[in-house]
Amino acid sequence: MKEMREKETAAVAETDKAQIEAELGKNPELAARVRHQMRVIRQGAEELIGAEELERKIARSILTGRPLIVKFGMDPSAPDIHLGHAVPLRKLRQMQDMGHTIVIVIGDFTAKIGDPTGKSKGRKAMTEQEVFVNAQTYQEQIFRILDREKTRVHFNGEWLELLNLNEVLQLASTVTVARMLERDDFQNRFRSGVPIGLHEFFYPLMQAYDSVELGADLELGGTDQTFNILMGRQLQRDKEQEPQAALFMPLLEGTDGTEKMSKSLGNYIGISEDARTMFTKVMQVPDSLIVKYFELATDILPEELDKVKEDLADGCNPRDCKLVLARTITALYHSPENTAEAEQFFRQAFTKKEVPDQAQILEVVLESGTLFDCIRPLVNAGIVESGAQFRRLIAQGGVQKNGVRVERPEEPVKSGDVLRVGKRRFVQVKMC
Amino acid sequence: MKEMREKETAAVAETDKAQIEAELGKNPELAARVRHQMRVIRQGAEELIGAEELERKIARSILTGRPLIVKFGMDPSAPDIHLGHAVPLRKLRQMQDMGHTIVIVIGDFTAKIGDPTGKSKGRKAMTEQEVFVNAQTYQEQIFRILDREKTRVHFNGEWLELLNLNEVLQLASTVTVARMLERDDFQNRFRSGVPIGLHEFFYPLMQAYDSVELGADLELGGTDQTFNILMGRQLQRDKEQEPQAALFMPLLEGTDGTEKMSKSLGNYIGISEDARTMFTKVMQVPDSLIVKYFELATDILPEELDKVKEDLADGCNPRDCKLVLARTITALYHSPENTAEAEQFFRQAFTKKEVPDQAQILEVVLESGTLFDCIRPLVNAGIVESGAQFRRLIAQGGVQKNGVRVERPEEPVKSGDVLRVGKRRFVQVKMC
Repeated sequence: MKEMREKETAAVAETDKAQIEAELGKNPELAARVRHQMRVIRQGAEELIGAEELERKIARSILTGRPLIVKFGMDPSAPDIHLGHAVPLRKLRQMQDMGHTIVIVIGDFTAKIGDPTGKSKGRKAMTEQEVFVNAQTYQEQIFRILDREKTRVHFNGEWLELLNLNEVLQLASTVTVARMLERDDFQNRFRSGVPIGLHEFFYPLMQAYDSVELGADLELGGTDQTFNILMGRQLQRDKEQEPQAALFMPLLEGTDGTEKMSKSLGNYIGISEDARTMFTKVMQVPDSLIVKYFELATDILPEELDKVKEDLADGCNPRDCKLVLARTITALYHSPENTAEAEQFFRQAFTKKEVPDQAQILEVVLESGTLFDCIRPLVNAGIVESGAQFRRLIAQGGVQKNGVRVERPEEPVKSGDVLRVGKRRFVQVKMC
Repeated sequence: MKEMREKETAAVAETDKAQIEAELGKNPELAARVRHQMRVIRQGAEELIGAEELERKIARSILTGRPLIVKFGMDPSAPDIHLGHAVPLRKLRQMQDMGHTIVIVIGDFTAKIGDPTGKSKGRKAMTEQEVFVNAQTYQEQIFRILDREKTRVHFNGEWLELLNLNEVLQLASTVTVARMLERDDFQNRFRSGVPIGLHEFFYPLMQAYDSVELGADLELGGTDQTFNILMGRQLQRDKEQEPQAALFMPLLEGTDGTEKMSKSLGNYIGISEDARTMFTKVMQVPDSLIVKYFELATDILPEELDKVKEDLADGCNPRDCKLVLARTITALYHSPENTAEAEQFFRQAFTKKEVPDQAQILEVVLESGTLFDCIRPLVNAGIVESGAQFRRLIAQGGVQKNGVRVERPEEPVKSGDVLRVGKRRFVQVKMC
């Protein structure tokens, strides 16, 4: 019986496939639109699995006017979103701009369970209240990138809380123990004798089940999600759905140009940072990453990216390219006025030959709401050791604020200000 | 917090332990009763795990008058119960006779799920109706052994159907993947690349959960249940219950004396068979198994068993011992009159020197409700090939029925009759 149904489904899919391909053959405009969407989707991506199916899905979506369902999962652990987190979100935004529907799945069910063994600190159980607050914070941030109108937000508890043991066992029966142990982290732990709780095998399965519930056409994630997202494809096939395509976005390096962007490494650009800080931080990114940042941190179209690549190849000044990059990124999160002001500020604070690299700018965080003189950030940065030394520096004209010589020791600082001591040492002030 | 509670529980258990041991020290009658119960429980058993705890539980049960909860699980696959199946049931009966409560857990939940992959034929899903009918059939049979008044029957669906995903994950988190793969059959399949469905890992867990639900003090099972029953101990500990003791009964060989008793091997003694058949079949058991049959197939007391062993060591005739055995077993399932009649029948059908062994008695099954002459079973057994040959045999006095010479070819047979042809060939008739 099941086999018969599978054959029928396959037959229907086969007809559908043939029809769409015939349509693509005789309709060059349709073909061009599909090619364009595929190019936008692929830009900057690490890997796309199920590309052929996705092409057909896009063609069908154009023909029927029915948007694709694009799924993206998040843990409600309330991060401050930075440009690294924003990489998949920007890709989602690009798909929204092409008319598709984004479904954000907030893993509240998983978060509330945490790790029942209490062994993993990363999986601390969260209360209903914590999940709610974090989900709110997260949504405020993602809607700086996504179009609220074309976004559906779901909590996976909506359907997972309803599953009973019988249904859980049906779900578990779709996968083998050996297949689960293929996942890299499970495999490594199993081989080296590090315990794997049986419940951990359910996290990929639950994520896969989310795809079935949503009838997802495409799931987006980091490369660390490969196993889980592919399990979604398998489970959808088992449930006789068309399997979702899987799009993996790479990790973005931070402003140091080497490590993955991360708050704890201090090499991050937060999407909520003020325009001046954002602009300055982008200017610190090494030249070698200009193209990657255009690809992953902006919504630049494939044709425009080709132009940037050409310019760089033609020997244009990387600093000019980077000014375009900084302007483009800052404008995504700030008004045109603030972006222009940030650029002006930057040009004044750092003259042409003195763009400092990451290693030379120290960030000093001060408590907001208090007024500070410029001695404080310099003391905190370890550059100045006494009031006498500071006054001597001022008298010698050795301290600048935002490119202007500081004349008096009690000169105040505000968030975003850049202090420069001597030729090479920069301190940027951040209030929070 | 959890750790604190564990310490407290351990402390309470420790006090309880000290109290009971003090009581046992100063109360020799209590100690003797505990020793007796332990001896009865241990008789014939393959292994007892948690013996020390069990001793304390028994002592506490005697002191408080609160019976132990003894758990026994069954699959509702409706077997005709034979003396092999009866081994654990008899042990349960002995525990009832010492005042304890037996809980039969019918695995309806598992039976109704079957194997969702459909790959295992042994795990075919059963309907509600099938489970119900089989459970009825099973209960009719077990109450030929157990005391209905001291038996509780539960279906594990009562509690398993109520579990939701959250609770399932809590349950799964109590065990590691590596621990599951220690179970022999899983290990062998994993090593040889035979797929293990993830749902299969739940069968031991569900059985363990049953023990928690019941607060079982002791679980009984075959040695093939070792892993699952020990998992019950672990889960009870996790849930801060006193872990159940685990009693494993060996498999009983059939009347051929070599293979495990089984209907398909034809070496079985069904508990619903008539007294004559039962008595005769027991008499066919090889001498080497007399003690084992006394141990596992009767409710003989340890002291009486010692006597049997002594008699056999003192060179008493095994046939006499076996007559006692056949009488004892038959009387467990039949009235004293029928048992006496069966013995008389046996003594008449098989004279002293002619007790046939298993290989010499052929069982021929005829349809009940029809009248048959004695030629039919002999033809079916392949001993007689024609009416002429049969009449010749009769005329020569070469055919006996139940030890009496058959005079005419149309002599009728009924169930239990034993026909003998020549010196060595026996055919026993069974109608069903």
